[in-house]
Parts: sequence; structure tokens; C-alpha cells
Amino acid sequence: MAGQPKVTDSFWRRYMDVVRDEVIPYQWEALNDRIEGAAKSHAIENIRIAAGEAEGEFHGFVFQDSDVAKWLEAVAYSLAADPNPELEKTSDKLIELLGRAQQEDGYLNTYFTVKEPNARWTNLRDQHELYCAGHMIEAAVAYYEATGKRTLLDIMCRFADYIDSVFGEQEGKIKGYDGHQKIELALVKLYEVTGNKKYLNLSQFFIEERGKEPHFFDRESEARGDTKPFWYFSSYKYSQSHLPVREQKEAVGHSVRAMYMYAAMADLAEKLGDDSLKEACKRLWENVTNKQMYITAGVGSSEFGEAFSFDYDLPNDLSYTETCASIGLVFWARRMLNLEANSSYADVMERALYNGTISGMDLDGKKFFYVNPLEVWPDACSRHDKRHVKPVRQKWFNCACCPPNLARLISSIGQYIYTERNDGIFVNLYMGNEAEFDVKGRKVTITQKTEYPWDGTVSISVSPEEPTEFLIALRIPGWCRKAQLKVNGENVAIENTVNGYVYLNRTWSENDYIDLILDMPIERIKAHPRVRENAGKTALQRGPVVYCLEEVDNGTNLPNIFLPKSTRLEAHFDSELLGGIVVIEAEASRLEDSEWGPALYKPAEETFKPHRLSAIPYFAWCNRDPGEMLVWVNEK
Amino acid sequence: MAGQPKVTDSFWRRYMDVVRDEVIPYQWEALNDRIEGAAKSHAIENIRIAAGEAEGEFHGFVFQDSDVAKWLEAVAYSLAADPNPELEKTSDKLIELLGRAQQEDGYLNTYFTVKEPNARWTNLRDQHELYCAGHMIEAAVAYYEATGKRTLLDIMCRFADYIDSVFGEQEGKIKGYDGHQKIELALVKLYEVTGNKKYLNLSQFFIEERGKEPHFFDRESEARGDTKPFWYFSSYKYSQSHLPVREQKEAVGHSVRAMYMYAAMADLAEKLGDDSLKEACKRLWENVTNKQMYITAGVGSSEFGEAFSFDYDLPNDLSYTETCASIGLVFWARRMLNLEANSSYADVMERALYNGTISGMDLDGKKFFYVNPLEVWPDACSRHDKRHVKPVRQKWFNCACCPPNLARLISSIGQYIYTERNDGIFVNLYMGNEAEFDVKGRKVTITQKTEYPWDGTVSISVSPEEPTEFLIALRIPGWCRKAQLKVNGENVAIENTVNGYVYLNRTWSENDYIDLILDMPIERIKAHPRVRENAGKTALQRGPVVYCLEEVDNGTNLPNIFLPKSTRLEAHFDSELLGGIVVIEAEASRLEDSEWGPALYKPAEETFKPHRLSAIPYFAWCNRDPGEMLVWVNEK
Repeated sequence: MAGQPKVTDSFWRRYMDVVRDEVIPYQWEALNDRIEGAAKSHAIENIRIAAGEAEGEFHGFVFQDSDVAKWLEAVAYSLAADPNPELEKTSDKLIELLGRAQQEDGYLNTYFTVKEPNARWTNLRDQHELYCAGHMIEAAVAYYEATGKRTLLDIMCRFADYIDSVFGEQEGKIKGYDGHQKIELALVKLYEVTGNKKYLNLSQFFIEERGKEPHFFDRESEARGDTKPFWYFSSYKYSQSHLPVREQKEAVGHSVRAMYMYAAMADLAEKLGDDSLKEACKRLWENVTNKQMYITAGVGSSEFGEAFSFDYDLPNDLSYTETCASIGLVFWARRMLNLEANSSYADVMERALYNGTISGMDLDGKKFFYVNPLEVWPDACSRHDKRHVKPVRQKWFNCACCPPNLARLISSIGQYIYTERNDGIFVNLYMGNEAEFDVKGRKVTITQKTEYPWDGTVSISVSPEEPTEFLIALRIPGWCRKAQLKVNGENVAIENTVNGYVYLNRTWSENDYIDLILDMPIERIKAHPRVRENAGKTALQRGPVVYCLEEVDNGTNLPNIFLPKSTRLEAHFDSELLGGIVVIEAEASRLEDSEWGPALYKPAEETFKPHRLSAIPYFAWCNRDPGEMLVWVNEK
Repeated sequence: MAGQPKVTDSFWRRYMDVVRDEVIPYQWEALNDRIEGAAKSHAIENIRIAAGEAEGEFHGFVFQDSDVAKWLEAVAYSLAADPNPELEKTSDKLIELLGRAQQEDGYLNTYFTVKEPNARWTNLRDQHELYCAGHMIEAAVAYYEATGKRTLLDIMCRFADYIDSVFGEQEGKIKGYDGHQKIELALVKLYEVTGNKKYLNLSQFFIEERGKEPHFFDRESEARGDTKPFWYFSSYKYSQSHLPVREQKEAVGHSVRAMYMYAAMADLAEKLGDDSLKEACKRLWENVTNKQMYITAGVGSSEFGEAFSFDYDLPNDLSYTETCASIGLVFWARRMLNLEANSSYADVMERALYNGTISGMDLDGKKFFYVNPLEVWPDACSRHDKRHVKPVRQKWFNCACCPPNLARLISSIGQYIYTERNDGIFVNLYMGNEAEFDVKGRKVTITQKTEYPWDGTVSISVSPEEPTEFLIALRIPGWCRKAQLKVNGENVAIENTVNGYVYLNRTWSENDYIDLILDMPIERIKAHPRVRENAGKTALQRGPVVYCLEEVDNGTNLPNIFLPKSTRLEAHFDSELLGGIVVIEAEASRLEDSEWGPALYKPAEETFKPHRLSAIPYFAWCNRDPGEMLVWVNEK
């Protein structure tokens, strides 16, 4: 692809604008500690201190540098979409500062440089050293691709070269890996942009080494003289290092770590043509998406360890479902698509993009959820076991991973639309965009126009510079039960899809056009009967968008609303509401409590009264008066 | 009453036998560290060390003495019911040992005597010093009443006298109280048995002082130079000392502490004729029983702090519902009945006795639950937020409060049947027993025969030594919607009940008899619509017994069982099952998963297949193959 597609989509363009106008500037202020009342970041100051240009102590988490990296990465994507000389100048200056903070040998990490200069590489398990490097490598790659400027890329190549001299199979090198996966994925990107296979090999080394016995974290902790057991049940499941990656069959442990690792595994399986690694990825994918994923594409059922729990354990009110974990799921799905054109990966990717990722940010880009539960009773957030569930989005977090992670995802949303292959182009997502491809040596321009996700009509134009035979494969979304397809106005049958894609293999000429109409009725979704939490409940979905009830529309005590099975559901677009959304309404009924009396328990016939149910997209919840929220609605 | 009623009831007599034959002997071995594999108690050894008769260190909790006290109290009740010279000899020896462990000034507490002799009364908030004294006073009173032996009573009077010299309003005394209420209730008992009003006054002092500002725990912690905040949210709600007791309107904090305090308040309100204290008790009663109590009469919705949470927050799978808290609720209800003859207190007492208390012990008296949840999915007990929920009863606990507490409750069950008043006798509970009363100076013998709780027919004989006019008031249970009453074979109308009691005011003669037939159909109970957890669900109850589904009868995934609203429920007595219980059966349906396929979510019509639902009494769950359990069943 010649650069990333230019996103013109009204849904995503609005989010990109918010990231550009709100999130990126706000985060820059936050990183510089200029936001009154917000938790101190100190991230930029840490770099100044490391560069010897300021006095003071390191402050923040060991992974404070990664906030800067994620910000830079988001800036890069944003600059690619919307040039902004002032922002670019600010970033260039930051990059120069990073250069001055880099040590002689290429090392770059403000925590260790400032605070523990002699403790480099002594506690990979806990200290996020390679994790931070990974984020900065991703920023460097993105910045280079957006601006053509090599400064940060060179800095990070030097650091990666140094890392390569420290870690590896060879005598005298550390046979280890990071407690928080990230560098594995970043090194593949660095390999792709530099062509230097050393980086791919190093990524492979980290992945292959993981979970081998004798366990690196044991050897490392012994070398430190550390006698305390590791906090997380003393189990390496937390960091997916309990087994060699090829032997892992179920998603366990910290969900963000897991997502980043699985994404890297998919990358390596593709680049190395490694079938057994591909099988491991597919097994883990089946486990996550068929047994451990919420309908919003949230993952991580357990607050303890911010982790996966076990198959079919999907409590709606206790979930962790971190924004970053859904983002990680998008990264992974994107790479599974590279590995294999199968729309089930795109289905999950789309589910995450329209639900569990963007729910992490308010519509104005000013407040964020770390945790994205499927049922919120604000009063219950005072319970100790639900204290991680916040009833309203927060301005900034001490551990500020999610906001910049969302910023970089949204700014780079165009990267998820297409997969390029030698034989043509796969269309994974439908959103307004213009993209240029190089197909069989010829320039091909593809544009999409659509009001997705509110309307399933997509107009695609395909313009090669001269008539060329190639493949356009269009995904028929898993949620779509009926679709119509026309090429240049003529109906094309779509009985035969290949792994969920319609293959249009033909000679394309300038101004060819495709019309795809995806039926988008409201669906009542049921969860697998083994998800006990949802027995007798239904979730509303329309297209890729999962719906929820909010107190502001439906009053208090949402579990008392029952949706009769026979009720007709109506959808209408409300341009005034929440930036323009499709609302779902239905005649439902509500369990009455006004005549119940004080008794807590009694043999009683329930009394219902009619209730006009109003549901809004899950991602848009908590943008009006705060209150209860519920995805899985009682049916009767 | 001349001693406690002799319980002949087949239901309770079996439990009393189990306590006598299993629990008391087992606990004695445990207290003496003679159970292989069990957590070390060291409780008796602590006393030996305190008495100077053994060498060693104190071991266990600061409240380890209370385990001994509760055991002695249970022994006392058991001896009253079933004389046992050998057990009495063992106890007498223990009491002598306690006497030798008592200090010159009357002080008796092995933790402080052995471990911190100079720290007496410096940390009432955390160290359970008066709590232990309270339990030992209760044991002393019970032992004296059972055996007529004064040794332990004298020991504890000396200790109470000493405590009275340390605590009080007067200059130089500590104006404080214990972090764990218990002594307040014990001192009332000591007053009743000794007639010494000093003890009543001291109890009143502790209750009145609680929650006053400047706060005693602040003053105390300042005196200790303690700078750390108190763990429990730094809130004195944990120990109900956040407000003076008369100003408390909602049950908060540690539920066992709360129950013991409310019970003491009810005692004091009665003995002192204190109306505002009575009002406070009634307010708290309304709050607990109408807003914070499970259908099993479990209380404490939150594991954190073993505590109440807030109104209508009654999650079935996260509850704490400690056995001891339900026992405490029985103590409180019993005292509310003394304060006011109102069957609603007896209804709750009965609910606790047949459900949330005895569920804490298996039928053999060998294993115990600390936590009594209403829904158990054993797999989910591995979740960090549900780790307090044990899927099977445990042999013994480190913190062994519940087993001996149950032992003393069951051994003294007869004390809960009647309330004596000057004008007659109130029958609160129906169970087989023989009791002697002194009514208006005359001996009256009352016997009950019944197969309660399985059958609602109760035969009561009333035999005064000579014809006497007095009141017999019979409780019509809240669960009973139709009752028949005959006196000497003649129908008596029961339209007019006074606060739930039928008043039979007449001249009773030898061999008069009452037949009471309480209709006991199976009821489908609904929870108040504000209990969101139970929307769309029903609980089965028959008489006072709440039912549950178990995996062993119903297969896995109990939330997938739906009970149609129209289904007929059938009850039958199964003498072979679980010691003889009434089983409830019904034609229900079960959500099918065999044809669902792998997808986690899809638009699907649910498939149901017929399921023969089988429910057993909640108290009897987990006495066969371990597995899932569920009280609130989905309805459709």
C-alpha cells in the first residue's frame, strides 16, 4: 500500500479529529505535567533528567517512557493523515531529546538510566525494560513512515542492535525475555521497515525462549538473591511464560500481555512461514474468541492480574475488559488476517473496533475507561470486589496506558481496512476511505463510501491505472445474514464465499464500481448456553454495533426491564443524539416495585408495567448523565 | 423456665446428638492439637503456658481463648440436655486450669498474659480483649446453669469486677470499649444470673460510650503512637463505632460484630426499659431484615470486612453470609422477642435456624462452612474475588469461630422455643420438646409433638398442676397462609392475631391440648424488585425451609434450568435421603447446549429440553458429591 488509506469515513474521521484535536494535545500537556489536578506524569521530565538537562529524581512507573512512545506513535499516524507542522516540530524536538538521553552504548530507558544505572537487565520479569523499548521502536517505525524522518528510527536501531548484543542464544548473552511482551511485535515492524533480518531473529528468539525450563525468571530471581515468591499466585501464567508458546492452548494471565504476544506469534508465523506457530495462534484464537471473550470483544474476566480467568467465565459486572486488551485483540486479529484470509478474524476485529475499544473514550476524547464492564450499577462500585469498575470515565490515570493506546489505534484505523496479497486486495472493513495500492506493478485506487456502521450500504470504486486482472475479495460480515452485491450495476451471486470473503477475480478497469448492500436488521443475540451469566438474557446488536441500556433513557434498576420475545425492535437514526447514532426502541415491560411493600421476600405474583425500552450503542454509554448501564437484557 | 426445655424433636435432636457425639469431642481434640493434618489451635496449650504449667510461646489469634470459651459453653448446654460425667470431668479440669491461668488481679487472657503482659488494654480496637472475656463469661453462665457449679462463674465474676475497675465514666478509668462487641451481651447474662446490677451498668456503659467523639479508637491509637490508618477504609463503620448506637439507622460493617451489638442493645432496652434504645433496635432490625438479608437469613453481602454492604445489594455468588452472622441474627431475634412479642422476629429467627445457620455444618458434624453463598459454581471459586466461597465444607479453620458457635447454638436450641411473660407463655417455635414453667406461681408443663419442619401439624399439651388462667400465645408463622387451631378438640377461630400470635387466654387444666395445623404448601418466593440479582428468578420454600438445586440431582450449569411459572411443584418425604428430608420436584426445562456449536454469540432461538427439577433443603447441600448449588432459579 502506498501509505495508509486516507480515511474519509464520517464515523472514524470524527474519532480521528478528536484524537488530533483533543487527545494528542491533552496528552502532551499531561506528559509535561501541565494539567492542573491530574496525576503527575513526569514522563518528559524523566527524559530531560536522563539527558543530563535537568536535575531531579525519576518519577512514575518503571514503564513511564512507554507513555511518551505511545504518544509519539499516535502523533505519527495523525501526521500521516493530517499534516501539522507545529506538532511535527514539537515531536522532532522530543525525538532530539530522546537522542540525547540515549546512552553511549545505545541504551535508552529513563528509569534505569536515572534511578538504577547498575541494575539494567537484572529484573526482566517485573521491570518492563524491553517493553518500553518495544513501544519506542513502534513509535520510531510509525514516525519514519509518516514523515520520512530517520532520527528516531536510527536511535531505536542503535538500541535494538545493543539489545541484540545483550540477548540471544550465544555464550555470554542473556537467554531471557521481558515480563511484559511488546518488543517481539515491535522488532517485526523494525525488520519490515529496515529489512534487517537480525531484528526478526531477535523477535523469534524472545518468543521461542519464553516458558522454557529451567525458567528464565527463576534463574534471574535467583541471581538477584530474590527470595520472595512472585505475587501473582507465584504462577508464570500471568506473563504467559508458564509453557513454551507452542504448547499453550488456553489464554491465561494478564490479557494485554497475552494479546501482544499472540500478535507477535502471528507475525512470526507469517514472516517465517512457521506452521506449528500458526497452529498455536489458531488454537489460542479459538479459545479466546469462542470461550473467553465478551460480546463487546472485551477480554479479561478477572480484575486480579487484569487477567483471563477460564472458559465461559464471563461475569458482566466483575469483568476487567481493559481497553488496552481489546486494542491488543485488534492487533492480533489484524495479524491473523495477514496469516490467513478468514473473515472470522475480521469479525472479531470489527467487533472490538466498534465496541470494546472505543468505549474506553468519551465522545469528546477527554475522559477514559480503563475497565469496560457490561453491567454497571454505580452504587455497587463501592464494593471492594467491584472497585475496579468505575461508573464514569476518568480524566487521566496514574497508569496511563489506555488513553495513548486508543489514540494510536484510532489514528491508524486506516491500516485495518485492507489486506494486500500478491493476487489482489482483501477488503476487511467497510469505512469511507481512499487508498492506493500497487497490484502486479500497477497503481490501483480504491475508494469506499458508506454510512457504516449505521447503514450497510457500501459503494466501492476500483480504479487501476490500466485494465488489470486481479482479485478483490469482499468480506461478508458474520453478523450479516443477507447481502446483495453488484459490480458495475450488475448483480453478482454471493453464494460462494471463501472463508467469509466473496472473491471477485476479474479484469478491473478505471471507474469500475461495486455496490455492496449488507442487510443490517436488529438482532437478538444469545450467548452460548455455557455462559451462565447470560441464561435467559439477550443482547441487542445491529451490524457490528452492540447495544446497551442506560439509566438516563430507561430509569433505574435496569435488570428489572424484561424484553418480551415477541416484541418488535425498531431502529432509527438520531442525528442529534451522541454525535449521531442509531437508537433501538421496543415495547418492553418493567417489574414494578411501587406496590410491593417493605418485605424483602414473599410469595408474590410479579407486577409488570409497560416500558418503552431505549438502547444506544455500547461504545457511546456514559456520555450523558451518569448512571446504570446494562448490555444483557432479561427476556421473558 | 425451670431449666431449658428438653428437646425431643427428631430434627433438632439429631443435630444435638451430632454436636454431642461429633462436634464437641472433635473440637476438644482440635483445641488440644491432637487432630492430624488440621490447623494447629494451641488454645489449651496457651492456657497451660499462661498458668505457668508449660513452657512455650503463645500461638494463634489474639482471640484464641474464645474458641475454648465457645466450646465450654456448648458443653454446658449439652450437659444440661444429656448428662455426661466424663465430659463434665474434662470440663471441670479445664475450668480449674483457667482458674490457675487467671492473674492475681482477676485478669484472664492468655495472649496478653503470655505475649504482651505490659500491653493490656492498649489496643481495644484490634485485640479482642473484652471480646474474649465476653465469651468466657457466657461460658461461665451456661456452665453454672447447666451444672450448678460456680467455679468458672466465680472466676469470671472476679474478671468482670476487675474490668469494671478499669473501664467506666469515673476519673482514671478508660472511657472505651472493645473493637469486637461481645462483652455487652455477656455482661447482661452475668447480671441475670448473679443479680449484680454492676454488670448491667458496665454493659450499658460500653454500649453508650460507643461511637462518641472524640473517638476512643483515635485517642487510643494516638496514645500508642500508632500512625498507620486503620485498615478497613479507615472507617469505624467496620466495628459499628462510627456513630453513637442510638443514631445508627443502617446496618454497616462486620456483620458478626453488628449482630452481637444489636443483640446487646435489645437486651439493655428490655432490662432498662429504654425506649429510645428499643427504637434504635427496631430501626436496625427493619434495615437488616427488609433490605440486607438473604432469603436464607444470611447477612453480610461483602467479603471485604466480612461486612454488610448497602440496601438491596445481595449478590448470590459473592456473599459472605458467615455462619456466625446468622447465629448472631438468631441471638438478636431472640432478644427482640423478649422486647416485644411480634412474630416477625420469630419468623427471621426460624428462617436463620432452618437455613443460614445449620448450612454451616454437614449432617455428620465433621465439616463446616464459614461462608454460606446462595450460588456456587465450583470452578469460579478459583477467581480471586470469589476465593472466600468454598465449594465444599472444610474440616477446621484457622479462625475457628463458626464450628463452636454452631455447637453452642444447637445445644441450646431449646432456649429459643418460648418466651415467658408474667401473663403466660409465648410459643415462638414449633419443635418436639417438654418444658416446665412457673406461671403465676404454679408449675405448668408444656409438651410439643411435631414432625416440623416437614409437616405443619403440631400437638401441644398444656398441663398446669392445677387449673389456672393464663395466656398461651401461638405464633402463626409468616410463611403460613392458612392455619387451623383446636383446643381440646374444638375449633378456635384465628382471625385475630396480635402481632402474629394467636392469644389463647383461658383457664388451662391438666391435660388440655392444642392442635395446630399449619398449611405448608411449596411456595415460589420472589425477592423485592430492588434486589436486581433476583429479577426473573424464584426461590422455593416450604414451611421455614428454603430449597436449592444441587448438581448431583440436576446436572451441571444450574442457571440453565428454567422453571415454568405454571409448573406444579410436588413435595415428598424421602426418609433415605440426607437423614430424611422433604424433596421438591417439578417438570422444568433446561437450556440445551449440545447443538449450539462453538460460537460464543449468535442470533439464535434457544432450545430447551425437559428437565425433572429436584430441589433439596438449602441447609443440607454439599452432603453428597460436591458440585454446583443454586437457590434462586430462573423462571420462564
